[in-house]
Amino acid sequence: MNQRFLAIAEALKPALTKRHIALDNADKRPLKDGESQTFDFGNHYVGYLTLSLSFQGSHPDCPALIRVRFGETLRDVEEDTSDYRSWISRGWLQEETVHVDVLPCTLVLPRRYAFRYVKVEVIAVSGKFSLVIEGLTAETVTSAPEEIAPAGGSELARRIDKIALRTLSECMQDVFEDGPKRDRRLWLGDLRLQALANYCTFAHNSLVKRCLFLFAATADETGRISACVFTEPEVAPDDTYMFDYSLLFVNALEEYLAATGDAETAKELLPLALKQLELARSHMTEWTVDDSDVLGWCFLDWDLTLNKQAGAQAVYISAAKAAARLCRALGEDASHPERCAEEASKAAVKAFYDEELGLFVSGKDRQVSYASNVWFVLAGVFGQEKNARILQRLKAFEGAVKPVTPYMYHYYIEALIESGLKGEAEEVMLAYWGAMAEQGADTFFELFDPDRPDASPYGSRAANSYCHAWSCTPSYFLRRYFQS
Amino acid sequence: MNQRFLAIAEALKPALTKRHIALDNADKRPLKDGESQTFDFGNHYVGYLTLSLSFQGSHPDCPALIRVRFGETLRDVEEDTSDYRSWISRGWLQEETVHVDVLPCTLVLPRRYAFRYVKVEVIAVSGKFSLVIEGLTAETVTSAPEEIAPAGGSELARRIDKIALRTLSECMQDVFEDGPKRDRRLWLGDLRLQALANYCTFAHNSLVKRCLFLFAATADETGRISACVFTEPEVAPDDTYMFDYSLLFVNALEEYLAATGDAETAKELLPLALKQLELARSHMTEWTVDDSDVLGWCFLDWDLTLNKQAGAQAVYISAAKAAARLCRALGEDASHPERCAEEASKAAVKAFYDEELGLFVSGKDRQVSYASNVWFVLAGVFGQEKNARILQRLKAFEGAVKPVTPYMYHYYIEALIESGLKGEAEEVMLAYWGAMAEQGADTFFELFDPDRPDASPYGSRAANSYCHAWSCTPSYFLRRYFQS
Repeated sequence: MNQRFLAIAEALKPALTKRHIALDNADKRPLKDGESQTFDFGNHYVGYLTLSLSFQGSHPDCPALIRVRFGETLRDVEEDTSDYRSWISRGWLQEETVHVDVLPCTLVLPRRYAFRYVKVEVIAVSGKFSLVIEGLTAETVTSAPEEIAPAGGSELARRIDKIALRTLSECMQDVFEDGPKRDRRLWLGDLRLQALANYCTFAHNSLVKRCLFLFAATADETGRISACVFTEPEVAPDDTYMFDYSLLFVNALEEYLAATGDAETAKELLPLALKQLELARSHMTEWTVDDSDVLGWCFLDWDLTLNKQAGAQAVYISAAKAAARLCRALGEDASHPERCAEEASKAAVKAFYDEELGLFVSGKDRQVSYASNVWFVLAGVFGQEKNARILQRLKAFEGAVKPVTPYMYHYYIEALIESGLKGEAEEVMLAYWGAMAEQGADTFFELFDPDRPDASPYGSRAANSYCHAWSCTPSYFLRRYFQS
Repeated sequence: MNQRFLAIAEALKPALTKRHIALDNADKRPLKDGESQTFDFGNHYVGYLTLSLSFQGSHPDCPALIRVRFGETLRDVEEDTSDYRSWISRGWLQEETVHVDVLPCTLVLPRRYAFRYVKVEVIAVSGKFSLVIEGLTAETVTSAPEEIAPAGGSELARRIDKIALRTLSECMQDVFEDGPKRDRRLWLGDLRLQALANYCTFAHNSLVKRCLFLFAATADETGRISACVFTEPEVAPDDTYMFDYSLLFVNALEEYLAATGDAETAKELLPLALKQLELARSHMTEWTVDDSDVLGWCFLDWDLTLNKQAGAQAVYISAAKAAARLCRALGEDASHPERCAEEASKAAVKAFYDEELGLFVSGKDRQVSYASNVWFVLAGVFGQEKNARILQRLKAFEGAVKPVTPYMYHYYIEALIESGLKGEAEEVMLAYWGAMAEQGADTFFELFDPDRPDASPYGSRAANSYCHAWSCTPSYFLRRYFQS
């Protein structure tokens, strides 16, 4: 652990803004075994809950046993989770079973939750009394500044912006979290997009700096940066390393410098950024990324059917180009990253570009996907016009593996913009995020496939996160590209 | 609420003696979903639990979801409670489901439990880590003085005494509780027996005084004493009133005076004691107790098949005689309670004594039970010899309703002793409590029917309490009668 980097990160730990939201229960109906009441806080919140409980009937003669469920969506609290089957831990379900020994009482739940809805179910009282819920109080937390100016544009655009801003601010805590329900921690791919949206909205730039230093502090002995950093009980890297996420450290750092002008930080972290390019080559033969069946070796999108080889190559090129820009901006020699980009681009065309299709393909089965082609467009292997044609062909290509997350959608929209297809980019954005808004989203989701609204890579919809930072970038697009 | 009585009671609130018992987990095997580990503290304890938890494998990437179960017996923690069916609340089951967000950690459970065994089950971790239980620490609480001299006698007698003393001391908390698992509160019938055992063992007589004043303070506007008093969140009477329990206030007060010589307390509470005799008459026609089908109107024993009419009459006579003794001891006029005892005795013989059987019978079906006959023996309606014959006939009478609780067994033994059948009394005591000891009891049970070890008036064995104060009286019998 690099203690100097850690000290810098920890010194930047933000104060959290706390707000209290009291919800009086107008309908104080007495609850018996199996009965419940659901409360709506009216918007998505991250924070703590206190319940004010009393009783009706005789003096309680046994502990009241209750279940408190928290939902980012109404369905979260309505769904039967007793037969929850998912490879992701049941521990993520936001539900507590609590004994209440003394009534009336103020029940303070010590854990943090992400919620709009709270359902209180009575599992057991006795025949002599009923539980009455007097009211609930939420103490909300965020490290985002209070208010920022809304984006302009159509009513839909402004609605999307509002939801995106809330998504981002809910994820701004001690670090930029991926999602306040799950995993509640700092992931590099997510950070990059959060930072982009942050620069043109909340501009809480010291939080980006803190996160960059947390990744830097927890690089392993070879300099490899983890995909994810834990901060509790102490700062520690996850032992999950992903080809693309490590490389995106370079892009994130370059964008940080561009947004803030903080050359000191950029200089300090440049060697580690360049190190990621070097380390990536252990996955390459000459200048071409090897194919791999290892689950999760490279992320790109939350799709287990996606072949990652070509996309990984493109991310490498993108990172190398970002490194070159970074070096040039800092007055450092950029020739090495420039050469990396060049060699990898040449190799990419040879290995992955299918002249006949006019598209990039990936893996031994020559899979056509948005992920591969979008990333090659972003990597700038070809010029703008050819890239635009690639994106048009991709759209027309039946069977192309489509994006399943707002994360991949972000890159698709960015690619459309960079290829001069700004109008189409805006359409895609409004359609995709607009569909979530139409569903009544208070915050944008981790996963959203308009054709399969119940889809979950975890095997259960209940495991999905409905406030996920990587879906906050409409606020970035609207301000940077679409608001003129 | 009588504030003067309440102030006296509250001033006598005892300090609790706390002890820490650390249990290191020698077998620190890593636990996955569905795996568990059971710990044995080696004896019955009342108190709080802290768990020291860590992990094996990768840094925990989700909350660990665990269930902690507490058992007074090993079976308590082994039994499947998922299909718990009982008319008594599930809230009494000593099990907690807890999310552990950060590992390693010290998990402090805030509630008090009664336990020897603790089972920790992992409901969910993730594929990346396992839970490790490093150790457990119990903080035990009691208001009983540290140690008292053991009773003499046979090895079995001494074993029984030790278990009985532990039963009593575990139930000595802020008040004399009926049982530290359930109901964890002050019941009058239980108090009477606890006080008797206490006088000749721990002699924590101010705790008896406190409890008498708690009952007195919470008498209703007519002076009627509740069967049970709550102390949390504030002192309050239960709205359960039982014919025998209210009357036993008289006996308990008279025995308190005899044991302590505290005439001031006895004088202060005498009017309320006499009031119970008066109020009892609302259940009587002339001098005979009415029969009643109202569930729980009179306790006697935990047996819903038991007809209470005759037993209630006998309790009335017993209380009237105790009131008379109390008056005489305090130099007050005893003629009224003396007359009550006399008239009720005459009426009892007429209404309930079956000359042909030579036994008391109860209710319109003329039920023969231990409860009715034992209480008439204790009430002294007949002389010692006739009483002895009644008890012998009772034993021989096929179909007599037998005692099901140590509470009723206590009165049976007391009746044998008062009838000059001390040898048989000792035999019964050694056989009944000895059978629990043989089963490995650390404390004596709420319910024990040697022929039906799984019986429960609650419909589920899991609801039973296995440390119940009303079964502590062997320590009283051994010291008062059998230790010469």
